Amino acid sequence: MNSKLLSHINNPTDLKKLSPNQLPLIAQELRDFIIEIISQQGGHLGASLGVVELTIALHYVFNTPVDLLVWDVGHQAYGHKILTGRRDVFYTNRTLNGISGFPKRSESEYDTFGVGHSSTSISAALGMAIASKLKGDFDKQHIAVIGDASIASGMAFEGLNHAGVSDANLLVILNDNAIGIDPSVGALKNYLTAVKDGKNPKQNNIIKSLNFDYSGPIDGHDFGALIKELTRLKAVKGPKFLHVITTKGKGLQLAEEDQVRYHAPGKFEAKTGKIYSKDETHLPPKFQDVFGLTLVELAQKNKRIIGITPAMPSGSSMKYMMEAFPERALDVGIAEQHAVTLAAGMATQGMVVFCNIYSTFIQRAYDQIIHDVALQNLPVIFCLDRAGLVGEDGATHHGVFDISFLNCIPNLIICAPKDAIELRNIMYTASLGLNHPIAIRYPRGRGETLDWKKPFKKIKIGSSKPLKKGTEIALLSTGTIATNVEKAIEQLDQGQSISHYHFAFIKPLNEKELKAIFKTYSKIITIEEGVIKGGFGSLINTFATTNAFKNKIINLGIPDDFIEQGNVDELQQICKIDVLSILKTIKSLK
Amino acid sequence: MNSKLLSHINNPTDLKKLSPNQLPLIAQELRDFIIEIISQQGGHLGASLGVVELTIALHYVFNTPVDLLVWDVGHQAYGHKILTGRRDVFYTNRTLNGISGFPKRSESEYDTFGVGHSSTSISAALGMAIASKLKGDFDKQHIAVIGDASIASGMAFEGLNHAGVSDANLLVILNDNAIGIDPSVGALKNYLTAVKDGKNPKQNNIIKSLNFDYSGPIDGHDFGALIKELTRLKAVKGPKFLHVITTKGKGLQLAEEDQVRYHAPGKFEAKTGKIYSKDETHLPPKFQDVFGLTLVELAQKNKRIIGITPAMPSGSSMKYMMEAFPERALDVGIAEQHAVTLAAGMATQGMVVFCNIYSTFIQRAYDQIIHDVALQNLPVIFCLDRAGLVGEDGATHHGVFDISFLNCIPNLIICAPKDAIELRNIMYTASLGLNHPIAIRYPRGRGETLDWKKPFKKIKIGSSKPLKKGTEIALLSTGTIATNVEKAIEQLDQGQSISHYHFAFIKPLNEKELKAIFKTYSKIITIEEGVIKGGFGSLINTFATTNAFKNKIINLGIPDDFIEQGNVDELQQICKIDVLSILKTIKSLK
Repeated sequence: MNSKLLSHINNPTDLKKLSPNQLPLIAQELRDFIIEIISQQGGHLGASLGVVELTIALHYVFNTPVDLLVWDVGHQAYGHKILTGRRDVFYTNRTLNGISGFPKRSESEYDTFGVGHSSTSISAALGMAIASKLKGDFDKQHIAVIGDASIASGMAFEGLNHAGVSDANLLVILNDNAIGIDPSVGALKNYLTAVKDGKNPKQNNIIKSLNFDYSGPIDGHDFGALIKELTRLKAVKGPKFLHVITTKGKGLQLAEEDQVRYHAPGKFEAKTGKIYSKDETHLPPKFQDVFGLTLVELAQKNKRIIGITPAMPSGSSMKYMMEAFPERALDVGIAEQHAVTLAAGMATQGMVVFCNIYSTFIQRAYDQIIHDVALQNLPVIFCLDRAGLVGEDGATHHGVFDISFLNCIPNLIICAPKDAIELRNIMYTASLGLNHPIAIRYPRGRGETLDWKKPFKKIKIGSSKPLKKGTEIALLSTGTIATNVEKAIEQLDQGQSISHYHFAFIKPLNEKELKAIFKTYSKIITIEEGVIKGGFGSLINTFATTNAFKNKIINLGIPDDFIEQGNVDELQQICKIDVLSILKTIKSLK
Repeated sequence: MNSKLLSHINNPTDLKKLSPNQLPLIAQELRDFIIEIISQQGGHLGASLGVVELTIALHYVFNTPVDLLVWDVGHQAYGHKILTGRRDVFYTNRTLNGISGFPKRSESEYDTFGVGHSSTSISAALGMAIASKLKGDFDKQHIAVIGDASIASGMAFEGLNHAGVSDANLLVILNDNAIGIDPSVGALKNYLTAVKDGKNPKQNNIIKSLNFDYSGPIDGHDFGALIKELTRLKAVKGPKFLHVITTKGKGLQLAEEDQVRYHAPGKFEAKTGKIYSKDETHLPPKFQDVFGLTLVELAQKNKRIIGITPAMPSGSSMKYMMEAFPERALDVGIAEQHAVTLAAGMATQGMVVFCNIYSTFIQRAYDQIIHDVALQNLPVIFCLDRAGLVGEDGATHHGVFDISFLNCIPNLIICAPKDAIELRNIMYTASLGLNHPIAIRYPRGRGETLDWKKPFKKIKIGSSKPLKKGTEIALLSTGTIATNVEKAIEQLDQGQSISHYHFAFIKPLNEKELKAIFKTYSKIITIEEGVIKGGFGSLINTFATTNAFKNKIINLGIPDDFIEQGNVDELQQICKIDVLSILKTIKSLK
């Protein structure tokens, strides 16, 4: 790559040696570098392009890593990584043993706080700021850079509400580009837009009302304005707030024009930004589309069906329902807590609510599931997208805890369909009305079923299904990992000794079938794409001890560690739930 | 009771027959009735006294239960219960098989949404309002009554942010008395106080900026103002917000003067409000005070120790630290998510943070524990107060899920001390610095240890302790339920056959001791004050199956149901973890 300046920047000290008039050139080089690498590797593009100038200005003005800089979510931190010693390894971004796609404390002293989920930066930076004050350091600055989608989440408000009565050195920078992954929504977003348009008196805005020293809005691509204002703020004590306007995808025309698609566009032509077209028409569908299209089908027949997504209309494919029935499909923004209790409120009025939340993000609404839904036994239908290992997003995003944390909640049905057809059918079954709430978990990406649009069939709640009958060893799996089990059995020379049972229902468990299984087979292997601790396998163990069965049991699943990034195959190998590992486990028993 | 009007009010229809000038009399009678019953029974006093006029006005003006009324938290809903058919059973408030201390859907059609935890009302009422609109009902009103402490929680902001861009018929009433259980905190509270004092322009306040039709502030004890404004708002479509100023404890002088103490004062003299004094000096201390006083002791020796409470300084006894070291003890308001990530931010800077959150409320910060603390392996010290059965607060407040939902989180240590001395010592041990975060769970109320202020002793992480050695049956308990086990063994004629082991550490488990136990005793009973599903007992089951032990195992703990209100003894009996039930289980094995 032909970079005159960037190749000499190994840390912010190098950056500070540049004169202000060299900054636009380094911005151009940084942007080109990000585009070059991401075009080949994939990754989050638009957010980082939008903050190139802001990133440079922050490291130019502030004394990082002594001054502490926290990026919210972290999709936008590629420039930060490249400027802080990771230029040469940036090509390993989001790969196994490479650098993480998100800031990560173990990776660099410049990554002051690990992120991935949104809206944590204000709380984290305020904690650091209060700590500095208590340690007698009154000069250090603590900076949270947060987007307009993330600041509308409740947790960010809690941070602002506390910071406003603190005298700690916190600088909140609102990176306002009017979009998260999908366009931002909500009253605060409309308000911020009005502020940008000069329609609100600056002296009494919401942020000012929360006792912040508010400044802006300023142009986040104008180095002059950025450097001047950041330099002023560096000397200001206490909580302060800078409103910066940026353009997501800045500098790559197609990315600016289609910000949703270019959030993480996959591979593309670096020069033009043109995304390489792939013929995917003959591939099995993504589970996301199975969800989204099935929901539309069901909603056509039942007026009481509603869809809710917290800020993931594209990712979850709720967009289909939003297009077909805009009144009945709601994007509530990054507000998982609200999404769940909103669903509960609707359910009290007889609505059939499909609340789609990624497995990893429903951790944000855990209390609401217990206290507002399950305790009142309201039949909300939770669709937990991206359950299991998600791949390149890594440790912050794997949806591997849900079985364990949901299983202890009374009244809740938990279902993990094995394929697209079963996902459709459990959605159909749930839409007919259940006496309980239900959580349906399914993974990111494509299954293996091409011909999935079969007529709907009702599924018996709590049922299980023998997929293959054998004589000696029973493999019990839940969810789509059944496919790995089937492939492992196929590869066995003496496959006839193996039985395979699919337990779509983790709760209620089919104890009748389990009893028969434990009486028939001496050896049992459980397999799940979730943590073993408290998961499906541990339920089977408890079933065995409670019923005094003495069978040998082996549990396969995610170990008691955080799993880093990599592709799903690699991560399944690490967790020993890939086809070969399952095969080995079976052989070890024979 | 000498009530001329109240005794004829069986529902809001009866109330509506009164003339406006009779309302002050009914308010007086309702207040007297609440004071009379609560003075004898205990319960939440101050909040309900503060909204007597508002409650009457709401049911007088609106067409409940067709118009849907949601009380946030529900501490203030006694008047509502009494006016909606529960006057004659109100004396059973908070008792086993009596009425719940909180609104509850199964109890009355006037209780439109079950509450207990704060800040859910806006989301729930908005869900109902959107459902009504979709069903073609454009006249029905949906009302959320929320306090100034609850509205500062992130979840409430998420609800407001969505409601502001909805055209649904939502009325949010801010019951602003400047206090939750303890005085409200935060920037929003200061702002609201300024609004009350006329210091902010009403036309551009925060709420107005979020696109609500804002009115107020009005005097919440002035029937004229209330009836007039509620009548006007009844005809207004879309989202609207009424700011009402009330006095917590209104009408009982001592309760107005000491609002913290009279939140739930226990029994008192109805006429004067004087709380019956009890000599408690010779009782064992509350675990809360053991926590609070020990923290001060440790903080005296270590300047890096910080305490955080989300709005429970009195309840958790963090108040002692706040008095001793005001700079190092923070009440962040009802903001569990923020509290946890704030603690994480502090921990990155070397602070030793004791983050005290009730077990039931840490459900609100589940993602933050996983994503911000455990994933980064930051040594935050979580003190989970009110773990186990809490008694009269009932299903919304029992802290019975924590072992299950924490156990699946990598890196986290989980400890349940058996008594006050062990609680002290694990706090001491954690304060010396651990390589991991730790959650320490302990119950509400008093233990049995009088002489608890012993010199600190370090505890080995992951250790367990034999409390009694026997020959045949091993009882494995975790936490303070050990006391019930000890009492059960004492009552046995042939106690010499029984061993009792205390596992303070649920994670990491002392597998070495477990192996010895499983080799020595043929029969194992596990006992915990938490749900069995995914809890301590289920870990022991998995230990057994993983290690191919064939011992008979019985798990005692909370069943897979929501447990209602009652005193702790009664509830332990229901769950079969009281002394007698444990005794019976032992005998059944012999």
